[in-house]
Amino acid sequence: MLNFMTSGESHGHYLIAILEGMPSGLAIDLKAVNHELARRQEGYGRGGRMKIETDQVELASGIYKGKTTGAPIGILSINKDFKIESMPELDRPRPGHADLVGSLKYHEGIRPILERASARETLLRVAIGGITRQLLNEFGIMITSHVFELGGINIEKSELSFEDIEKNKKDSQLNCTSTTAEKKMIALIDQAQKDGDTLGGRFEVRVKGLPMGLGSHVTWHQKLDGRIARAIISAQAVKEIGFGLSEAHGSLPGSQCHDEIFYEKSRGYFRKTNRSGGFEGGMTTGEEIVIRATMKPISTLRKALQSVNMKTKEAEKASFERSDTCAVPACSVICESIVAYEVANAFLEKFGGDSMAELRRNVDGYLKQIKS
Amino acid sequence: MLNFMTSGESHGHYLIAILEGMPSGLAIDLKAVNHELARRQEGYGRGGRMKIETDQVELASGIYKGKTTGAPIGILSINKDFKIESMPELDRPRPGHADLVGSLKYHEGIRPILERASARETLLRVAIGGITRQLLNEFGIMITSHVFELGGINIEKSELSFEDIEKNKKDSQLNCTSTTAEKKMIALIDQAQKDGDTLGGRFEVRVKGLPMGLGSHVTWHQKLDGRIARAIISAQAVKEIGFGLSEAHGSLPGSQCHDEIFYEKSRGYFRKTNRSGGFEGGMTTGEEIVIRATMKPISTLRKALQSVNMKTKEAEKASFERSDTCAVPACSVICESIVAYEVANAFLEKFGGDSMAELRRNVDGYLKQIKS
Amino acid sequence: MLNFMTSGESHGHYLIAILEGMPSGLAIDLKAVNHELARRQEGYGRGGRMKIETDQVELASGIYKGKTTGAPIGILSINKDFKIESMPELDRPRPGHADLVGSLKYHEGIRPILERASARETLLRVAIGGITRQLLNEFGIMITSHVFELGGINIEKSELSFEDIEKNKKDSQLNCTSTTAEKKMIALIDQAQKDGDTLGGRFEVRVKGLPMGLGSHVTWHQKLDGRIARAIISAQAVKEIGFGLSEAHGSLPGSQCHDEIFYEKSRGYFRKTNRSGGFEGGMTTGEEIVIRATMKPISTLRKALQSVNMKTKEAEKASFERSDTCAVPACSVICESIVAYEVANAFLEKFGGDSMAELRRNVDGYLKQIKS
Amino acid sequence: MLNFMTSGESHGHYLIAILEGMPSGLAIDLKAVNHELARRQEGYGRGGRMKIETDQVELASGIYKGKTTGAPIGILSINKDFKIESMPELDRPRPGHADLVGSLKYHEGIRPILERASARETLLRVAIGGITRQLLNEFGIMITSHVFELGGINIEKSELSFEDIEKNKKDSQLNCTSTTAEKKMIALIDQAQKDGDTLGGRFEVRVKGLPMGLGSHVTWHQKLDGRIARAIISAQAVKEIGFGLSEAHGSLPGSQCHDEIFYEKSRGYFRKTNRSGGFEGGMTTGEEIVIRATMKPISTLRKALQSVNMKTKEAEKASFERSDTCAVPACSVICESIVAYEVANAFLEKFGGDSMAELRRNVDGYLKQIKS
Repeated sequence: MLNFMTSGESHGHYLIAILEGMPSGLAIDLKAVNHELARRQEGYGRGGRMKIETDQVELASGIYKGKTTGAPIGILSINKDFKIESMPELDRPRPGHADLVGSLKYHEGIRPILERASARETLLRVAIGGITRQLLNEFGIMITSHVFELGGINIEKSELSFEDIEKNKKDSQLNCTSTTAEKKMIALIDQAQKDGDTLGGRFEVRVKGLPMGLGSHVTWHQKLDGRIARAIISAQAVKEIGFGLSEAHGSLPGSQCHDEIFYEKSRGYFRKTNRSGGFEGGMTTGEEIVIRATMKPISTLRKALQSVNMKTKEAEKASFERSDTCAVPACSVICESIVAYEVANAFLEKFGGDSMAELRRNVDGYLKQIKS
Repeated sequence: MLNFMTSGESHGHYLIAILEGMPSGLAIDLKAVNHELARRQEGYGRGGRMKIETDQVELASGIYKGKTTGAPIGILSINKDFKIESMPELDRPRPGHADLVGSLKYHEGIRPILERASARETLLRVAIGGITRQLLNEFGIMITSHVFELGGINIEKSELSFEDIEKNKKDSQLNCTSTTAEKKMIALIDQAQKDGDTLGGRFEVRVKGLPMGLGSHVTWHQKLDGRIARAIISAQAVKEIGFGLSEAHGSLPGSQCHDEIFYEKSRGYFRKTNRSGGFEGGMTTGEEIVIRATMKPISTLRKALQSVNMKTKEAEKASFERSDTCAVPACSVICESIVAYEVANAFLEKFGGDSMAELRRNVDGYLKQIKS
Repeated sequence: MLNFMTSGESHGHYLIAILEGMPSGLAIDLKAVNHELARRQEGYGRGGRMKIETDQVELASGIYKGKTTGAPIGILSINKDFKIESMPELDRPRPGHADLVGSLKYHEGIRPILERASARETLLRVAIGGITRQLLNEFGIMITSHVFELGGINIEKSELSFEDIEKNKKDSQLNCTSTTAEKKMIALIDQAQKDGDTLGGRFEVRVKGLPMGLGSHVTWHQKLDGRIARAIISAQAVKEIGFGLSEAHGSLPGSQCHDEIFYEKSRGYFRKTNRSGGFEGGMTTGEEIVIRATMKPISTLRKALQSVNMKTKEAEKASFERSDTCAVPACSVICESIVAYEVANAFLEKFGGDSMAELRRNVDGYLKQIKS
Repeated sequence: MLNFMTSGESHGHYLIAILEGMPSGLAIDLKAVNHELARRQEGYGRGGRMKIETDQVELASGIYKGKTTGAPIGILSINKDFKIESMPELDRPRPGHADLVGSLKYHEGIRPILERASARETLLRVAIGGITRQLLNEFGIMITSHVFELGGINIEKSELSFEDIEKNKKDSQLNCTSTTAEKKMIALIDQAQKDGDTLGGRFEVRVKGLPMGLGSHVTWHQKLDGRIARAIISAQAVKEIGFGLSEAHGSLPGSQCHDEIFYEKSRGYFRKTNRSGGFEGGMTTGEEIVIRATMKPISTLRKALQSVNMKTKEAEKASFERSDTCAVPACSVICESIVAYEVANAFLEKFGGDSMAELRRNVDGYLKQIKS
């Protein structure tokens, strides 16, 4: 079973993570991990910091001769922008951030709160996703994402194949499949930036190539869709998540909400639709996982919101620190990684095994079993 | 810290749960627990079984002289409808259920899968919610819910206070605040039943009276909104969850998505809006928790969907077992309980303490601290 | 991965446990489970209660047509001796029991403390051991135990094979392999009973037929010897545990403490000694697990110890409730079950798999791998 | 609740740990942490490596202006002796190490196994102990240890007060309270070194200043003595652990094994003996925790044991890498840290609270409560 911890502050010296439970014998491509970190920094509408730092991680331990050993993997990133101790304390908490509640709860001021609550922590979760994704790729499991709504502008087309997504978003600055929509989105971002305002949006994460039966219906805590929901909601600024038809499940009749079952000797059991988003009873159906999630607009606004000076208790405008106008594309990339981790975890739980060779043997045996 | 397990099948002899971690000295009102079970059975559109059984639980252990002792609480319900061993095996898995995937994964036929995957298990989660809710009530924390959409019919009014909800839904058969909408919903249910079809819907769960600072931003797994998301998605048939503005966070600008901060000496810090649904940085803001979730239509349709006979591999209609047409009101009640448990757990984690007296002292100290 | 909870008081109505994580398709022999419960009640030196009740459990859920389904297994035992609510409150805590500390911590008197702290809870752990042991037996893994010291009387012979133990203890009333020692032990128990005193002792638990590589050195929490130590120390009244040479590891030189490594084509790698007690780096070596543990004398003495009346704060003799003189044989049986659970858990973690068929396939693949 | 992970190999570039769950507002003295690391390197009988490296850690995150913030604490140590990638592969596994089993299980050779299984990992556990100990010290809870047996030589005196231990071992090279015994121990170590052999021993860890009621009897997994047992057995080379009278509980009668209860208005409840080692029902009694543990002799012998060449399958002597003759004093220091962590964890679980101020208020309230 996988497990991980992250540590580190936005402007601290180090960001550190440890990932436990990877099987031995997986060759890790560090470049591919760092490529995911680069994807996380992209997207029209990002502020200054993204240009300051090109994030990189080092695999500090758990790797020998380029391969996993079964031992915990240490992940280390050194902040070039290290200055936490010299940064000013904030006195006016920013609405939408952890500032107010965190500083009352932990009692050491706002600075340490915002430094830890910052989405910079997701750098580590993307690195972990970058590693676990390589495990999944070995078994033909692939992940993608795209932004289908931004500030109210929608791509309109709802039925996209995994391949469509990958192809159509290729040159996008917003991880978006529609060039028409993207133009409008960019204009909206430009306008928001002028206004000192920010924008949110909605995106989809997809996973394909899955075996049936990851997760389980037998207990509430083994349901894989539930685990994914928790992980996605834990991503900074994500406020909503659904699977497949998602909220449309509430308005359509049952006859249009479920996926009829078919069988062909060569394919085994399969579906022609995927309204469930790849889950029945908390288990993967073998169809694609389809997750739809909503990111709220960035909480730091140049046109600052009303707040209170915590020292004087007087009404004042919220503090402002350098920030983005829109980070929905980044959020979609981050959530790819979060999903990679959760799926890899369910995969290892189901199949056991300490080495890649053993894992592969166990997987092959199961795939053969459910086909016959 | 709370923890629980449930066990039992839909037509098995017993449903059993164990709840660990309750402090000692809480007087438990068993009638109130059983009242929640009765609420779970109500709602226009339920099928035959709800009339067969009036669910009741017994507190089998962990209670002494009517009060908790700190020991695990055993919860026991005896099924009057006990007949699992004599029920027929199914050969045509029902789309939308765990039938197909579960039977391939566990390899012992469809019957044991559907018996465990059944929403009957939520009886126990409602009992657990009924107990943990009593803990919360002691501290002035109250929970309610209402159905705001059913089969596409919406109540329209979006800004309801906790008190409005409680008052307006009083005589509703659908846990709904609008009599106009309810009439249309009932007509729709009648039609669906005639058609052999089923209906889903959307509902809101609200929690009021919370202190600031339950949950934490410091690690992904301590974020309380994430935990709630997992628990709600693990409820049978729930496919979507959001907080506050929920998916509307994707279309509104930042200036309309965050909750400005105010201060008055008598109240401490507070907000005039609650777009966040009560969470910033995964922590309670002290405003109401507002959860919106979507339940898909019941997966068992009288007008059966296409399936495959698992013995012959021939295409056939799915099996049919007695079922409801619509269970959205029940689902909203179940989710009240699920939220009660998660909030109580975060409450106990934050405040520690083995007895109610100790818990109360710790809570009081904190409330005083954050006000000053 | 396995997990379990227990609930219930010594004189409560029900004792309840839930066991999660068993694979599907294992035929459960309930008689064999109840046989373990009977073994737990045996042993010269037990008091009155053992004669009142013949403990039995019912498998309340998770079993279908005699086999596991993969769902949580509910275990239920009804106390014939149910009278907790009418029993007198104690005012003089008994040294060695949880009475004093527990009642101060939980603040509801001594009665609920002693009722939960009682070793009666181990009835459930033996039932769980009785189930998990059946899983292990399917893979040729067997467990035994014997008492090698009681009240200072030792069996002297230290090198016993698994088969010796099983054979020599056959007719013992004390789970002891030496008839000579047993006679002395019985005389000692008789004397202690006359004196109103109690006796402890030491016992060994053995597991044979294990594959190499259960547990792991990669993290502290995966070390199987550590997990077993925790579980054994958590058994009521156990105060010490060691592996293999145990405390003698402290006095012998390294050249006499480690197990040299040998290889034969037909057997693979093996050892001629087993000083390690079956563990290197927290992993099973494939040799027998050899655990030595110490049980303190029963804490309830007829010749009561000095205590304090908690109401008056006056010095008084401790309360006395019906009790045994010596329960070391029972404790050894209980610890067999505890070890069965821990080993089965490590087994399932290593091999994964949802059904017995899948588990067996995964195990076979691994055994073949490490031999070649 | 505390939790931690460690990562890193003996000759890898970095050793990394993350510690979650510390309250905010604790001033951390890094020098004191590094002082514990220095203590871990001391002791007569250590080999070459201890002279190469003076271990130091850096607090990489989670600290702001010298104090904890409530966020996870990153701990980083850079190996000066970094050469893992250029070190030779071993082909002859060393008995007593994880070499054989680990390499068969993980399938990537012996080198990555020994690098991770190495006791060098305890550097991080000592750093974690160094931090958590500072939390305990704030509440007057202190920890010490001493070696009472080494290679069969015993200090003889069994009844030592905490203060005796601290005073008598002051100038010891072996963390030993008896100069007479120490002389013999040193001679024995010298002889063992000449012989190419190694030595183990036994030591005691003590904790004083504890409140009653850490841990709980209500579930098996909350018993603090069990948790400590697991953690201590997980320390490299520890094979046995007991509490208080430990294995002597097996030979003494009950009347000499339990601690009678007394009360004085000024002190509250107390004991005049401490045979239990500070635990009843898995809870602290308020008396000192007394742990006795056994470390086996170092597994790497210059006079190498019999092994098998894993490539040729021929019988050969085991590989030899630079090693110590005796590390019992180091082990006792390591176990102080392990116990510090476990006690701090139980302390935080019982009292809750996010900041030191809140924790202190909760503790004070409880101490007042149990006295009255």
